[in-house]
Amino acid sequence: MGNCGEILRNIFCREKNTNIRISLPAVCFVWQIAMIVLFGVFIRYDEESDVRKWIEFKVSHNITSDIENDFYFRYPSFQDVHVMIFVGFGFLMTFLKRYSFGGVGFNFLIASFGVQWALLMQGWFHALDPDTGKISIGVESLINADFCVASSLIAYGALLGKVSPVQLMVVTLFGVTLFAVEEYIILSLLHCRDAGGSMVIHAFGGYYGLAISWVLYRPNLNQSKRLSGSTYHSDVFAMIGTLFLWMFWPSFNSAITDHGSGQHRAAINTYIALASSVLTTVAISSMSDKRGKLDMVHIQNATLAGGVAMGTAAEFMITPYGSLIVGFCCGIISTFGYLFVTPMMEKYLKLQDTCGIHNLHAVPGMLGGFIGAIVAAAATEEVYGREGLIETFDFEGDFASRTVLTQGGFQAAGTCVSIAFGVVGGVVVGLILRLPIWGDPSDDNCYDDEAYWEVPEEEESIPPVLEYNNHMTRKHPDISESNFSVEQS
Amino acid sequence: MGNCGEILRNIFCREKNTNIRISLPAVCFVWQIAMIVLFGVFIRYDEESDVRKWIEFKVSHNITSDIENDFYFRYPSFQDVHVMIFVGFGFLMTFLKRYSFGGVGFNFLIASFGVQWALLMQGWFHALDPDTGKISIGVESLINADFCVASSLIAYGALLGKVSPVQLMVVTLFGVTLFAVEEYIILSLLHCRDAGGSMVIHAFGGYYGLAISWVLYRPNLNQSKRLSGSTYHSDVFAMIGTLFLWMFWPSFNSAITDHGSGQHRAAINTYIALASSVLTTVAISSMSDKRGKLDMVHIQNATLAGGVAMGTAAEFMITPYGSLIVGFCCGIISTFGYLFVTPMMEKYLKLQDTCGIHNLHAVPGMLGGFIGAIVAAAATEEVYGREGLIETFDFEGDFASRTVLTQGGFQAAGTCVSIAFGVVGGVVVGLILRLPIWGDPSDDNCYDDEAYWEVPEEEESIPPVLEYNNHMTRKHPDISESNFSVEQS
Amino acid sequence: MGNCGEILRNIFCREKNTNIRISLPAVCFVWQIAMIVLFGVFIRYDEESDVRKWIEFKVSHNITSDIENDFYFRYPSFQDVHVMIFVGFGFLMTFLKRYSFGGVGFNFLIASFGVQWALLMQGWFHALDPDTGKISIGVESLINADFCVASSLIAYGALLGKVSPVQLMVVTLFGVTLFAVEEYIILSLLHCRDAGGSMVIHAFGGYYGLAISWVLYRPNLNQSKRLSGSTYHSDVFAMIGTLFLWMFWPSFNSAITDHGSGQHRAAINTYIALASSVLTTVAISSMSDKRGKLDMVHIQNATLAGGVAMGTAAEFMITPYGSLIVGFCCGIISTFGYLFVTPMMEKYLKLQDTCGIHNLHAVPGMLGGFIGAIVAAAATEEVYGREGLIETFDFEGDFASRTVLTQGGFQAAGTCVSIAFGVVGGVVVGLILRLPIWGDPSDDNCYDDEAYWEVPEEEESIPPVLEYNNHMTRKHPDISESNFSVEQS
Repeated sequence: MGNCGEILRNIFCREKNTNIRISLPAVCFVWQIAMIVLFGVFIRYDEESDVRKWIEFKVSHNITSDIENDFYFRYPSFQDVHVMIFVGFGFLMTFLKRYSFGGVGFNFLIASFGVQWALLMQGWFHALDPDTGKISIGVESLINADFCVASSLIAYGALLGKVSPVQLMVVTLFGVTLFAVEEYIILSLLHCRDAGGSMVIHAFGGYYGLAISWVLYRPNLNQSKRLSGSTYHSDVFAMIGTLFLWMFWPSFNSAITDHGSGQHRAAINTYIALASSVLTTVAISSMSDKRGKLDMVHIQNATLAGGVAMGTAAEFMITPYGSLIVGFCCGIISTFGYLFVTPMMEKYLKLQDTCGIHNLHAVPGMLGGFIGAIVAAAATEEVYGREGLIETFDFEGDFASRTVLTQGGFQAAGTCVSIAFGVVGGVVVGLILRLPIWGDPSDDNCYDDEAYWEVPEEEESIPPVLEYNNHMTRKHPDISESNFSVEQS
Repeated sequence: MGNCGEILRNIFCREKNTNIRISLPAVCFVWQIAMIVLFGVFIRYDEESDVRKWIEFKVSHNITSDIENDFYFRYPSFQDVHVMIFVGFGFLMTFLKRYSFGGVGFNFLIASFGVQWALLMQGWFHALDPDTGKISIGVESLINADFCVASSLIAYGALLGKVSPVQLMVVTLFGVTLFAVEEYIILSLLHCRDAGGSMVIHAFGGYYGLAISWVLYRPNLNQSKRLSGSTYHSDVFAMIGTLFLWMFWPSFNSAITDHGSGQHRAAINTYIALASSVLTTVAISSMSDKRGKLDMVHIQNATLAGGVAMGTAAEFMITPYGSLIVGFCCGIISTFGYLFVTPMMEKYLKLQDTCGIHNLHAVPGMLGGFIGAIVAAAATEEVYGREGLIETFDFEGDFASRTVLTQGGFQAAGTCVSIAFGVVGGVVVGLILRLPIWGDPSDDNCYDDEAYWEVPEEEESIPPVLEYNNHMTRKHPDISESNFSVEQS
Repeated sequence: MGNCGEILRNIFCREKNTNIRISLPAVCFVWQIAMIVLFGVFIRYDEESDVRKWIEFKVSHNITSDIENDFYFRYPSFQDVHVMIFVGFGFLMTFLKRYSFGGVGFNFLIASFGVQWALLMQGWFHALDPDTGKISIGVESLINADFCVASSLIAYGALLGKVSPVQLMVVTLFGVTLFAVEEYIILSLLHCRDAGGSMVIHAFGGYYGLAISWVLYRPNLNQSKRLSGSTYHSDVFAMIGTLFLWMFWPSFNSAITDHGSGQHRAAINTYIALASSVLTTVAISSMSDKRGKLDMVHIQNATLAGGVAMGTAAEFMITPYGSLIVGFCCGIISTFGYLFVTPMMEKYLKLQDTCGIHNLHAVPGMLGGFIGAIVAAAATEEVYGREGLIETFDFEGDFASRTVLTQGGFQAAGTCVSIAFGVVGGVVVGLILRLPIWGDPSDDNCYDDEAYWEVPEEEESIPPVLEYNNHMTRKHPDISESNFSVEQS
């Protein structure tokens, strides 16, 4: 009977075929070739990166120094953002004991695809020259592409360990597409300000990932429970991700804000809010344990909530103490989320959220949108100056007559739009991902790099008798398990 | 009798209660709320980060381009410094086999608190507008706050593994306060130059930490000897810290120097000195082993001594070969310190210095102060030019008549002031920390993350019989210990 | 008989004496003192880092703002390059299970020596003032020194685990010297453009390392086979190196290009090419495994090939889709290299290439040189503008009459020169390294940090009986090997 169960289980496992030898190369090759063709048709250098156009631009704009090139305003921030996308998000997801390769490796893959697709999608919506039909790109486009792909990486956080790389490519393809549309609606049609993307990046990405994960609910995920935790060193690896995200968040929120005081102020506000988040996260984490011990999950994640929540308001005159208050509250809210909301969501909502993006991105992002709305609505000419109001909220052209109150209303509306896009888009994409063609792992095979990676074997030195005994089970470097069971029996 | 000892020891251990469930959250909440209130009363944006003031500033100063905003001069350096504070110091302290969480995590906590407190303390001393009673902050304030907190992180290096996070918060509170006072005396009253902080940061922080550690001497610390070493991978983690400190030290020493050639020269000098330190560190480390093997402790620490020692002189015309000589000597001195001085200090001075800050910060910082004094005293109008002398040493206002010789004397005096502040302040703070209310670990519980962190357990797969055998001892992921003893018995 | 073999082997091992207690300190001290003397004679600050000269420079060039100092154009890129050299190359070489100390530590040592020597060598060839006989250095010199040393670090990749640190110092001494000469021929005499160094850095460094490794062929290297693989966590450490190289490659290729659109365009092109490389690397890696599993070796290395191959062409108007195509092809070629060429080279060419630099640097570098030649030859006045052509290809002075076709020819010739220098120089240096005085390890002692490092022992808790049994073998933290053999026997 036991054997029967084993056999049945094996059959079931075989149903879930993680062999992606055809699907993954096919997706990579076809999509990459499509990128080349579309770049060939559409993408060109802008007037600051094209050698001819820049020479002409300097003459026509009476610019005497190359230092006025946007490259020098934004490139340092771009590189910080780039580190956040690849090292920050990547290493934050290495915390699982046997999914570090997948965490950092798949993050690398989908971000590399996503930025290309983002250059096209965002270009069509924001930078298409109606005369030539071409998209002009510069350093700001690269930052925006990194931003765009961040929303899909956030969604990956909810799915970590439970999906195949092919599914992640699909998540990114649709994620970037949806992002470009919602961003167009929020920034261009509703004329919201959202330089650090509380709404368009974090709220959207968070709810997008949660909705996908909800559709992909695995009732028997506890079969992989042995691998769902961290190890000592994997937690230290994850801290690399946390710290690079935390340190460079001021660059994230200031990267595409207005030159001059705009970038300056956004960096200061974010720096302050993040510092505040750390203290309240530590406080709640310590309070929640009966001996006051800190939990690495909280330190790795909730400390970042202040940066997420400042995404919209960082460029406004929120004041330094306002930033502190935002960080203070969001550190508390996010840590409570990890303590209570995530477990409850799994139990009652049937929503499995591996990295807890609900607490780090979805809720703080949504709050950040509303905080931005309030701060915008409270803006006064006394504080900003007449010219400053116009510059900060871009009250020009069609929007010259908009008041700050109206602006606040639109900011709040934009937040709702981003959440709606995330939830609806996520459900649709989740249903697509349920097709049995994507090579996702079985329930007892989740959180395991063995499924998609050649994992180094460390059992080489074990004598043959043990080797034999191991051959039924998947091989883990930590040899203690199987070996000891042999000796004890 | 043996049991009696055990029982007594248990009682004694219980006296040292590491339960910080009340004290840590209380400190975090109360101090963070105090920060919010004080920021509300005092802290405002400066004229380069306030949207209205910046617009007015551009008009009044006839500035045509936003690139003149101080943000673009200093932000890249700021971000490098920020990485040094959080990743550099944090990961350098992950080298212990079971204290990596505490190393990087508590560093994160106290730095986040410290920068807030530093913005206030430094603001009161340096940037308080007497008319409005407000402190104006900009990107340079953020750099200075990071600098200020560095001194407390240095002190943490001496205490690593032996104190509770609550004690560290106290160390930081007083450390930042003392720093602001000594910095005011040294930079404003004595009018010293110390852009990279050899005196105000390293000498002060080093002696501050040493004095605290001396007061907190633990005669029975060898009870924790099993945890006082490193493991292979923890040493690699620590190299992340070392390298980010080493690479970004040129930014550290140039971050707040004069625009233009000042920042440029400080970066070059520091880069050169650091390169030189590496070679002499390797030479001494190899010479000290009978087979010429290198010691990771030296590579991780003494290679940085050249950067510390250039903290004052980097902005002066010390010449490239002068920088090489400084790095050459300090690499030797620092490595000798690790080989001979640290063990002797523990034996004869009863001073336990976990990370060897005596050799990396205290002595090189002090030397750096005196090197700065000599280089200043040797400055000539021929080398600097008349205008250059004024610019470099800020011979303006009340100090217009000062000569370079006088300046050299004051630089030396400043170094003594910083050391005095460190020693006296450290003794006082150490006495405060001896109060039995801070939740510090017992002597046999040091260097152990178990005291303050929920550490992932990796014994899950061990059969119950072994689990039982483990229940008296603290659980370590490295299962080999307990298991083998079972089998052998 | 078996014992005889053992004894003979022991004798042979003793012949290979890895004791470097005299040679390593001697080399470090003597060479460092030589550097100090030579710096004293030759190296001075340039007009942008010397306080007096900069003040005069501003007046003579009618510069009103310090932001025009080259420091602000190049320092952020410099710091990115610096991270690539020390963390990028260093951590990429931590992938071996027991050679992480040597990977990151020796990289640190030789890079620190190399940059000093490079400042001198490159200075003599490029920045020697014929009147004063002095070399002027500024931030661009530091970048070039980092570039120069990169070629020796690449060579280290082929030798990883098989040479002593003294040998590596020799490799660097000659590597930097050869680099300076070939760079002078290629950039100054042939007047090639090679901002990111496909030719002068990667092709040269790659073939230099391969030639050395070929001369140092070890027929019995499989005696160290037990240590030639990775472990789970060492692979994650290596990803730190990969990602910092990948993220900052746009800075590498743009660091010393023309101010303005040149730097801007080089960054964009490199960013795009790298993204494309990732997808094709993943595709080929997955295709090559029977279950579609990815291989970390490919992800860690071949993903970078696009950046190498863009080293020459990045500053040209290669177009965004051209960059994508370059990355597309090089990801494929590099991964195929790891799959087929490296094993074949070892088997048929007797060439052991630990990190596969043939596939990551030699071939993509060579291709990059030829791609640059083609793109240069295809340049038109229509695309670049008349002034743009002159600016991009520096058609001034003696080279004012050169056409783009001629330029293309010279670019191709330059690539050949760099390869020739690498191969010939490498063979000569390899022969020097075969002298039996350098302390290199025996064949069964390769890839082992024990030879040159004090490695932390983790067996402390094993009962004496086992300890005794261990004392014949070198001690490895992974205790399982020896222990189990005891128990089984």
